[in-house]
Amino acid sequence: MCRLLIYKGTSPVQLSHLLTRPAHSIINQAFDSRLRVDLRRPINGDGFGVGWYDSVHDEELGCQPCIFTSVTPAWNNINLTRLAEKIKSPMVFAHVRATTAGSLSLDNCHPFVYGKLMFMHNGSIENFSKIKRRLQQELPDDIFNVVQGNTDSEWSFALFLSKLPRADAPSFTHEELRKAMLETIASLNQFAEEAGVTQPSLMNFCITDGDSVVATRYVSSRNDEAASLWFSSGTAFSEYAEGGHYKMSKADKRENIIMIASEPLTFEKADWMEIKTNYMIVITPKMNVLLIPIVDKFYVPPSDPAAQSRGIDLAAAKGLLAPRTTKR
Amino acid sequence: MCRLLIYKGTSPVQLSHLLTRPAHSIINQAFDSRLRVDLRRPINGDGFGVGWYDSVHDEELGCQPCIFTSVTPAWNNINLTRLAEKIKSPMVFAHVRATTAGSLSLDNCHPFVYGKLMFMHNGSIENFSKIKRRLQQELPDDIFNVVQGNTDSEWSFALFLSKLPRADAPSFTHEELRKAMLETIASLNQFAEEAGVTQPSLMNFCITDGDSVVATRYVSSRNDEAASLWFSSGTAFSEYAEGGHYKMSKADKRENIIMIASEPLTFEKADWMEIKTNYMIVITPKMNVLLIPIVDKFYVPPSDPAAQSRGIDLAAAKGLLAPRTTKR
Amino acid sequence: MCRLLIYKGTSPVQLSHLLTRPAHSIINQAFDSRLRVDLRRPINGDGFGVGWYDSVHDEELGCQPCIFTSVTPAWNNINLTRLAEKIKSPMVFAHVRATTAGSLSLDNCHPFVYGKLMFMHNGSIENFSKIKRRLQQELPDDIFNVVQGNTDSEWSFALFLSKLPRADAPSFTHEELRKAMLETIASLNQFAEEAGVTQPSLMNFCITDGDSVVATRYVSSRNDEAASLWFSSGTAFSEYAEGGHYKMSKADKRENIIMIASEPLTFEKADWMEIKTNYMIVITPKMNVLLIPIVDKFYVPPSDPAAQSRGIDLAAAKGLLAPRTTKR
Amino acid sequence: MCRLLIYKGTSPVQLSHLLTRPAHSIINQAFDSRLRVDLRRPINGDGFGVGWYDSVHDEELGCQPCIFTSVTPAWNNINLTRLAEKIKSPMVFAHVRATTAGSLSLDNCHPFVYGKLMFMHNGSIENFSKIKRRLQQELPDDIFNVVQGNTDSEWSFALFLSKLPRADAPSFTHEELRKAMLETIASLNQFAEEAGVTQPSLMNFCITDGDSVVATRYVSSRNDEAASLWFSSGTAFSEYAEGGHYKMSKADKRENIIMIASEPLTFEKADWMEIKTNYMIVITPKMNVLLIPIVDKFYVPPSDPAAQSRGIDLAAAKGLLAPRTTKR
Repeated sequence: MCRLLIYKGTSPVQLSHLLTRPAHSIINQAFDSRLRVDLRRPINGDGFGVGWYDSVHDEELGCQPCIFTSVTPAWNNINLTRLAEKIKSPMVFAHVRATTAGSLSLDNCHPFVYGKLMFMHNGSIENFSKIKRRLQQELPDDIFNVVQGNTDSEWSFALFLSKLPRADAPSFTHEELRKAMLETIASLNQFAEEAGVTQPSLMNFCITDGDSVVATRYVSSRNDEAASLWFSSGTAFSEYAEGGHYKMSKADKRENIIMIASEPLTFEKADWMEIKTNYMIVITPKMNVLLIPIVDKFYVPPSDPAAQSRGIDLAAAKGLLAPRTTKR
Repeated sequence: MCRLLIYKGTSPVQLSHLLTRPAHSIINQAFDSRLRVDLRRPINGDGFGVGWYDSVHDEELGCQPCIFTSVTPAWNNINLTRLAEKIKSPMVFAHVRATTAGSLSLDNCHPFVYGKLMFMHNGSIENFSKIKRRLQQELPDDIFNVVQGNTDSEWSFALFLSKLPRADAPSFTHEELRKAMLETIASLNQFAEEAGVTQPSLMNFCITDGDSVVATRYVSSRNDEAASLWFSSGTAFSEYAEGGHYKMSKADKRENIIMIASEPLTFEKADWMEIKTNYMIVITPKMNVLLIPIVDKFYVPPSDPAAQSRGIDLAAAKGLLAPRTTKR
Repeated sequence: MCRLLIYKGTSPVQLSHLLTRPAHSIINQAFDSRLRVDLRRPINGDGFGVGWYDSVHDEELGCQPCIFTSVTPAWNNINLTRLAEKIKSPMVFAHVRATTAGSLSLDNCHPFVYGKLMFMHNGSIENFSKIKRRLQQELPDDIFNVVQGNTDSEWSFALFLSKLPRADAPSFTHEELRKAMLETIASLNQFAEEAGVTQPSLMNFCITDGDSVVATRYVSSRNDEAASLWFSSGTAFSEYAEGGHYKMSKADKRENIIMIASEPLTFEKADWMEIKTNYMIVITPKMNVLLIPIVDKFYVPPSDPAAQSRGIDLAAAKGLLAPRTTKR
Repeated sequence: MCRLLIYKGTSPVQLSHLLTRPAHSIINQAFDSRLRVDLRRPINGDGFGVGWYDSVHDEELGCQPCIFTSVTPAWNNINLTRLAEKIKSPMVFAHVRATTAGSLSLDNCHPFVYGKLMFMHNGSIENFSKIKRRLQQELPDDIFNVVQGNTDSEWSFALFLSKLPRADAPSFTHEELRKAMLETIASLNQFAEEAGVTQPSLMNFCITDGDSVVATRYVSSRNDEAASLWFSSGTAFSEYAEGGHYKMSKADKRENIIMIASEPLTFEKADWMEIKTNYMIVITPKMNVLLIPIVDKFYVPPSDPAAQSRGIDLAAAKGLLAPRTTKR
């Protein structure tokens, strides 16, 4: 039941509007039961991380993202509360963690960073101990030595890095990021197959270089649902009523803000669109949104009757997301 | 929605059987939704504490209880998990905390200790900032300087200590502890009245010297429910099915184990009796259990019609306990 | 052996240049033995704090300072390392703590904040438990309830706030801050006298509202040395050689940077001037520096022979600062 | 400048006598400058761990050691202080860490445990990133997946485990442990050679199964000193003067207590014997002490003139131990 959030805007957002103030922010979602019933354990007690890029380019500060992570729960982290009131950014990744794998350690908190890139994962690689060594064989030495923690997520990021022509490049096209993402998923599927792992893995991966964003909603199964993923866009994201009630406004056709999240951050259903299972969402540097199916053997075309019966909510069963009462 | 647990046994219990192994231990109750719906926020992410007395008297180790506290969630504390497998005690206090007041700090974790005494609180002193200074005036210098944190709970403990003839005495009778407890509640009510505070306070207090236990289920109101409190007794507390399914056995009439808890630790309803609102439960050194009404202006005799209508569940509304579906 | 650092500049400094990069930053001073021999214990293992004001005024972000504190040692705090690379400010307070009083808790980390004000303390109030209650009597309710921790330092800050006409004012003159500072010291001396405390207290206090700075080097004794305090000024503070070797440049007569610190941050002795015992240093909003004697019964005029014999280094003996080999 | 301590006694010792009370315990050594001058950074701010076996065999508690670790400095850890007053054990490992490699994380704290075995390391494997993958190839899957952190030390432990016939055996002979230890060192030397690493590694390793202890003082060089290692034995270890002044008593010829430590724990030089560079010390279950040279290409016989000139104190230069003014 990890949760993640991506914000990309034409102007910077104060982090508190994303993280600490909204009644239904990813930090506060743990406390809210209006939309769901927790099946297993609360979502976000096992670490937290937020990463952001500077809103103005400052030669001295460089263009790497900054990361703040914590092993104490985000909802009671006084440093986070204070920093979120002071920091603005046009490109933010945030993640709350529930340990499905890996110990409680800053090393295991998302987002992970390498050069200009930030990466998050919601889900789990099934039977990861069986494919970990195989994955490591793929990695060049410099990438192999980047990994600090012990999670399937961080090793998946390392695998992603190894799929790029140059992981430390000063910039990337979204096409490069998409290609590397598809190859990462393909390799993980291959490793699972080689190891005889048949249970599906949940691979909601997110990557950004500060300009483009690629995020997947993916499960390695034709019969199960992936962990949930939603997006919203508009011209402003602001508090319309006291008590942290936020909404997305759409003043005109321009899209100044795009958000992607495990769960809607507002109570306005109409604000949010669900990303389909086994699709990839791309935000280009110019704020265009692309929705692209990930066509492999686990892809079920909408016309296929299986697309209707796809109802076993694997992620919910694993406690990796909140089961929803909405029809899907 | 703090939660607390007391164990007293004729023989020592391995802490893991109370804390980490049972599927419905106070640590794991946060994850369980079978008996309740979280109204506000998850219960036990804001600190944890356990205190215990040695099972054998060792001159060198002394007779003070040992305390282990943590500001990271108990459910993911590897030190707690390891220690709970290794420590046995006949007298245990445990507490999971949700911050209704006071910052996230080891100083604010229950149980609090002074000499041979341990103290816990589930509830909150309404408008505590208005009575804090008045309370402090009551305290002798040595007790005043004992307080390390900034919570209503710790100051209530200090007030309790000031009601004892000698807070650092080598032993206490349960009558002494009961008397000091009643005086503590009376003083807190008086301070609230003086300060014009009319909203009710929730005062589930627990004290032990290692031999006797006194615990209250109390609310300073004739119309509201106190925070929940239950007890159970039997000859053995053990796992009857894999996966942390524990039950209390009653092999004969002897009571070798007595437990008091905010919520039942087992799924066997019949194992647990609810303590009535505005009652005190006492466990004597010889394992007798006394249930004594706290008769003051907030006491409602069972014959009073108000006793039936007492249905506004204040504690639940405040998120200090879990609302129950049982009729009360 | 706490240590503190103040930076005020006409342009913002990247925090890493103050905190994490210099070989002799207050964080790294613990590791350096060139100038001193630790008499008792390492200085900065018991918590850390840094506070700063924004470099540009942003309506939305407000004008309160931001604070980052930590109970793990600053030298190994990855969040601090990352943030320090990304944050710039023209007005910074930083503090590393060794517990002479108070537990290891974020609540006890300096700087303390109230409204626009930030406060730090290096030293200790002798026998504070004997004067704590007396101090608290002086405080109005709103200030009394501000205190979160349990240290002499935070209560001294509360006392300081009570000396201001309005602690939550939007701005202060440096005259107001100076007056309140002198009254704070006078009251602490009076309380000590009333309580019969004769051992001297070390009161290196620092206050800022973001525009003015007032800092004291003070001991309540005619015979002892206060904890050390130095200042430096120049046009630039930069790395002149790899490995964190920084120096203060003085390109012209303008003073663009003023720093105050428990210990020189560079190895260039000539860069730093020692502030005399029982003096106050003031930085005005226009970057003027005033050095003002604190004339009370503990003041020893330079002409007084006692000024020469003042050699018992109380602070060093208490481990509150590093004894110096320089003649004083 | 990590430091480690081993205690084995015929009767259990209260942990506080080893850890928190002695003025010169490994926790307090950081504060003491009488015997040495810190060249680089304080020793023990980067994590702490203690592991111990039960003093009485309790079927329910099992025979695995218990571990308590911390990322905050040991000298200010209130849980450690409390637990050390309450726990007794006849077999204790303790370790304070300075990060030469690996992040500040509980996963990286020594001692490491597997089944009945505990392991500590003082030193560093030179250029570990160059041999990490080679080392991992040696490991069977179950051992490979045991590693949780990212340090040379924990991977060295995994390598050690792979040298045992069965790492999860219920018991070991000291001959088995010695053999595995020699093979571990030999393999690490081989990997370094294969990778072209020529700088020496410091391999003070300690292993125990609760009954036997094997510890090495080793450097992969003919010219350098290993990190320091001392031992002491006697009939009692007790406080002879207030303020934590402990000494080892030798009432008769029996040896009831054997201690091994990076630095002497008492100020009585005569109590401690230095273990020679590239020697192994073994404590048998029956409390016999064996000192065995590790004869490989880095061994320098005492008769060899090189043994005299062996004076470059590599460990001190790296800050891995305290340089000593005593002649060696």
